[in-house]
Amino acid sequence: MSSDHPLDPLTPEEISRATERVRPLFDDWELNFRVITLREPPKAELVKYLEAEHGGDVPPAFDRCARVEILVKDSVETIDLLELIVDLNNNSIIKQQHLEGKHSYIDSSYMKEVEEACIANSKVQDEIKTLDLPPGASVIIEPWAYATDGSNDMSRRITMCWFYLRLTDHPDANYYAYPLDLCAEVSEDLEVTKVYRLPSSANQQIHNEPGPFDRSKIHPTEASEFHPNLRPSPRTTTKPYQVVQPEGPSFRVDGQKVTWEKWTFRVGFNYREGLTLHDIRYDGRSLFYRLSLAEMFVPYGDPRAPYPRKGAFDLGNDGAGINANNLQLGCDCLGTIKYFDGWHNTSSGLPLRLPNVICLHEQDDGILWKHTNFRTGHAVVTRSRILVLQTIITVSNYEYIFAFHFGQDASINYEVRATGILSTVPIALDEPKPPFGTIVAPGVLAPYHQHLFCLRIDPAIDGHRNSIAIEESHAMRIDDANVHNPFGVGYETRTSYIEREGGFDLDVTKNRVFKIVNEANINPMTQTPVAFKLLPSYSQMLLAHPSSFHAKRSEYGQHAVWVTKYREDEMFPSGRYTMQSMGGEGIASAIEKRAGDEKEARIRNEDVVVWHTFGSTHNPRIEDWPVMPCEKMVIGLKPVNFFGENPGLDVAPSTQEVNKSVLFDGKGDGGEACCQTSGA
Amino acid sequence: MSSDHPLDPLTPEEISRATERVRPLFDDWELNFRVITLREPPKAELVKYLEAEHGGDVPPAFDRCARVEILVKDSVETIDLLELIVDLNNNSIIKQQHLEGKHSYIDSSYMKEVEEACIANSKVQDEIKTLDLPPGASVIIEPWAYATDGSNDMSRRITMCWFYLRLTDHPDANYYAYPLDLCAEVSEDLEVTKVYRLPSSANQQIHNEPGPFDRSKIHPTEASEFHPNLRPSPRTTTKPYQVVQPEGPSFRVDGQKVTWEKWTFRVGFNYREGLTLHDIRYDGRSLFYRLSLAEMFVPYGDPRAPYPRKGAFDLGNDGAGINANNLQLGCDCLGTIKYFDGWHNTSSGLPLRLPNVICLHEQDDGILWKHTNFRTGHAVVTRSRILVLQTIITVSNYEYIFAFHFGQDASINYEVRATGILSTVPIALDEPKPPFGTIVAPGVLAPYHQHLFCLRIDPAIDGHRNSIAIEESHAMRIDDANVHNPFGVGYETRTSYIEREGGFDLDVTKNRVFKIVNEANINPMTQTPVAFKLLPSYSQMLLAHPSSFHAKRSEYGQHAVWVTKYREDEMFPSGRYTMQSMGGEGIASAIEKRAGDEKEARIRNEDVVVWHTFGSTHNPRIEDWPVMPCEKMVIGLKPVNFFGENPGLDVAPSTQEVNKSVLFDGKGDGGEACCQTSGA
Repeated sequence: MSSDHPLDPLTPEEISRATERVRPLFDDWELNFRVITLREPPKAELVKYLEAEHGGDVPPAFDRCARVEILVKDSVETIDLLELIVDLNNNSIIKQQHLEGKHSYIDSSYMKEVEEACIANSKVQDEIKTLDLPPGASVIIEPWAYATDGSNDMSRRITMCWFYLRLTDHPDANYYAYPLDLCAEVSEDLEVTKVYRLPSSANQQIHNEPGPFDRSKIHPTEASEFHPNLRPSPRTTTKPYQVVQPEGPSFRVDGQKVTWEKWTFRVGFNYREGLTLHDIRYDGRSLFYRLSLAEMFVPYGDPRAPYPRKGAFDLGNDGAGINANNLQLGCDCLGTIKYFDGWHNTSSGLPLRLPNVICLHEQDDGILWKHTNFRTGHAVVTRSRILVLQTIITVSNYEYIFAFHFGQDASINYEVRATGILSTVPIALDEPKPPFGTIVAPGVLAPYHQHLFCLRIDPAIDGHRNSIAIEESHAMRIDDANVHNPFGVGYETRTSYIEREGGFDLDVTKNRVFKIVNEANINPMTQTPVAFKLLPSYSQMLLAHPSSFHAKRSEYGQHAVWVTKYREDEMFPSGRYTMQSMGGEGIASAIEKRAGDEKEARIRNEDVVVWHTFGSTHNPRIEDWPVMPCEKMVIGLKPVNFFGENPGLDVAPSTQEVNKSVLFDGKGDGGEACCQTSGA
Repeated sequence: MSSDHPLDPLTPEEISRATERVRPLFDDWELNFRVITLREPPKAELVKYLEAEHGGDVPPAFDRCARVEILVKDSVETIDLLELIVDLNNNSIIKQQHLEGKHSYIDSSYMKEVEEACIANSKVQDEIKTLDLPPGASVIIEPWAYATDGSNDMSRRITMCWFYLRLTDHPDANYYAYPLDLCAEVSEDLEVTKVYRLPSSANQQIHNEPGPFDRSKIHPTEASEFHPNLRPSPRTTTKPYQVVQPEGPSFRVDGQKVTWEKWTFRVGFNYREGLTLHDIRYDGRSLFYRLSLAEMFVPYGDPRAPYPRKGAFDLGNDGAGINANNLQLGCDCLGTIKYFDGWHNTSSGLPLRLPNVICLHEQDDGILWKHTNFRTGHAVVTRSRILVLQTIITVSNYEYIFAFHFGQDASINYEVRATGILSTVPIALDEPKPPFGTIVAPGVLAPYHQHLFCLRIDPAIDGHRNSIAIEESHAMRIDDANVHNPFGVGYETRTSYIEREGGFDLDVTKNRVFKIVNEANINPMTQTPVAFKLLPSYSQMLLAHPSSFHAKRSEYGQHAVWVTKYREDEMFPSGRYTMQSMGGEGIASAIEKRAGDEKEARIRNEDVVVWHTFGSTHNPRIEDWPVMPCEKMVIGLKPVNFFGENPGLDVAPSTQEVNKSVLFDGKGDGGEACCQTSGA
């Protein structure tokens, strides 16, 4: 099966073909296929294709290329990381690169081997014996990628092993509730290189004094558990709530192409970014070439060794695609739901189906617009329908819910919800609360941390030559005879254009707005160039010191908005290879390198890319324990003088005939009012 | 019919009783009853009542009092504004006050008289003749309250009359699309005192040069209209979407008391604030004594006379209750809906029913929490149900949708949506865009303006003695030998308490959080006092110059957070009588007056009130025309170490058995997939 469109993710057959082309290159050496994914077509080619496609012309033929990342263990047992680009049409290798000093993303089978090597180690076993664990309890090892801290040679992998206790034999018992003070480091070739004890107070350092597990840390089981099998019966007060779409949904899906309420776009998926969106148009007009979550960094604020090694690049190190949940009908969404599968590969290069990694469905979003004529009492009200593309990822203890919301008013919102379980470390009972963490259960410290996301926005606002304007609202001068502001109430917008690549800050006190503008296309009514504006999520930037490895590795955390010129391979604001990276590979360094070259640095009326850094400074609450209610963050992209009127003006008014709401006039609680609820 | 609870709004019978008690006091003078509303019980009394009620004791008897505001036209035709407090139990007047120099809120029958007087005026008629209007068109006069600008004596009412053209005889035609350059001022006794022409360019002033209406300003009708009768057929792509609650809703309503998912609270309503909430508790624990929108100011940024007179106090001058929409089943919400009526009074003091001014219903809000155990692949996911209390108001051209959202995680969100029609003024064709407005249609300028809301939060976090803490997240020092931060990644929270009344600013760069704290109640696990935090809406504050009347009248617009000690009659941050107010009656002045008195000014461990100012700097987009898609603002109140765990931990997992979602595997658009949609 070949593909219908250059943006289609690789098919299983294409994945196999890539494997077959690559394997013979390496004799009988051991190959570990880490990635076989679509190498998206170069933008110049793809733009031509899309123009033909939308212009009604026959699109040109296109090449299909796979990006393949492999680990090669050669005859002398050296492991090399290689990247290859395979031209699948011509069955040729068009690039082959040895990635000296780089590491691939987390290998879950390798991590399993680390766990096993660690638990089998005699020194670890000796330490576990000194813990004097309660009967029936078992030790769980949670291996984590090592966040560079300057303490070790990063040319080979090191894995941090954190230890927890599972009190019962239920496989879903929440072992994060019982962090042990043991810690081990495992080398790339599965040697346990260090075993030590974690600090147990704010001022203690790591140490080597064995001590038993303090059994008074054990909580009543249900207080630490979230799994229903381990909890008392849930509340029964929540009555069923169902979404019914008697004529089916309003969307249409053709392969990866989605059509809905004047919107068209293509759904992409890869192991790293997970859900990606391409060629987004409204009413036939081009808006965005590509939208994707480009990176996410979770630095922990606990200063004590070895915790500075907790700093997870959840995309670069873990992968939003490979960790995407298999979404379940009736659990993760309501209504009529379309699921998309993703395709990845096994370590031997076989295609691997990742089922239901994306769901597509509609939601009611309250009122879209309303006006009541106070003279006649007549009201016209329309409801807002949104189209949701959702993916949910699990990264060890945490979950993230990522969703693009398309609106009938031609806006796009990107919503992130953080949920799951806090990462925990041990603390002695009766210790005072440290200034960098919250005690959420006896002996359980949830350290402060940040979640810093980066949404990559590759705009195509009426075409690919765009500019970025900064608009601010300022009071007009009152002390200037040339300014007519006699009552002191006047205010105005002031617009400046960003001329060169750089990082920029938000400033709500000036109502600073970042607009993506097509300067060549002036709205004839407003006399201003057509634009989309960014509605940012106001967030604290990275707290780690600029000299720290956290800061050097996550440069995008310095500013809320970055603007660069499009470059074919500049997709990730902390670089492509974040695993144990040393820093200096991020967006700030890239901009800095080009700053001296005027032609390279200029971004006005160019093919620009906007990167928005946002997130949360997550100082845990006990209410986030033992499983965290979602914390929501929302970003918007909204037309500003792009159209000629409200793009949702033609949405039909809301009527009871269609909506079939039910009047409640009883007291409720499922009692006496039941007779009124036959609403369907 | 008497009332069951001291917080119940006045019943129709009580309104009549108040009228009957008041009328005889004024012989046969002409009375205009502006307000007959519940005088809420003094807090000291009410707190005792609520304590008994929740403690299972017999609550004490309570007095019912009405606050009555009347205009009295005495024998010499002088109109006086009076406020009376009527004790309805004892049929006595406990307070009577002459409000010298104050004005009541907008009187819609009087405004109608202003319209009629204005259109009947010969000078106005002469000017209209010079306009040379198109045949079939009619002139609509929109009277507005006068925003103090220093140009006139404010001791009597002045009304600004704005002129528009209605092109067709359809009563719902959008006349805001054709602003005329005519303007008139009408005195309290209905004399037209001034007639003049509005500026037609950014630099022009008001003038007196009659000129015809420029017919080339006339747009194709449908481009200016929103009413379906005046528009082409709406899009038909939006398929029906219904919410079905087969076992009825999860809430229970007893009179004004609502019980839902561990929450209890009472619903209040008055002509001014509209929806109010009282005695809010979760799982029996006290959280908030009273929540209300306390004010809203809409200053326009157009500096040219007479536009500085556009500055609307939509609560103080207009009233969120009296202008609340009659909500319609199946239009304003989905699912099973409970409506609350409000009661107001006619000018003669008869009870007046305001039907369906508040609706109560549930919504699905996506995922509440989820965790997937990566070792077993088992996922547990719960859906978030929210309870929504919504009211929608129309203030001339604009609409506001106000909604409190109660969550199963014990959080409360307050969502404001702005919609409706932009206020417009004329501009000559071919004029350049002024720096203080957007041209949205030919000859139609939508001036920049701000919407500044103030949410009054009267907390009772585990009781009435609360404090306000400011918590910030700061990087730990890296250059201080006394601080252990060897890797530079450490950060900590620093907390300070607000000791005295004042206004405070947000600072996202420090992750500044305002917490309402009960210092006497320490969470035993976290070792910190129980608290709720404010999740603010980051907003630009008032742009008008501090010396302007806009600024003097809307003091709360200076800072995002104000903290005061509770005072019985301090309910409104711009004062009770905002109509044509001169300033100096707001929250900043009140705080300033008390600043010298240490006992009065201290707010730590006191009965505190928090006022949150938020809103939008609304520089219109053409996409806001001719009717504006909702602009959303959200504020949150969220527990921080108040409970012992996630308050939504006991919500039952989400299952297909209950949710009955439908799998989509066709292409959609209501076509081939119909057979799969029998989901109910």
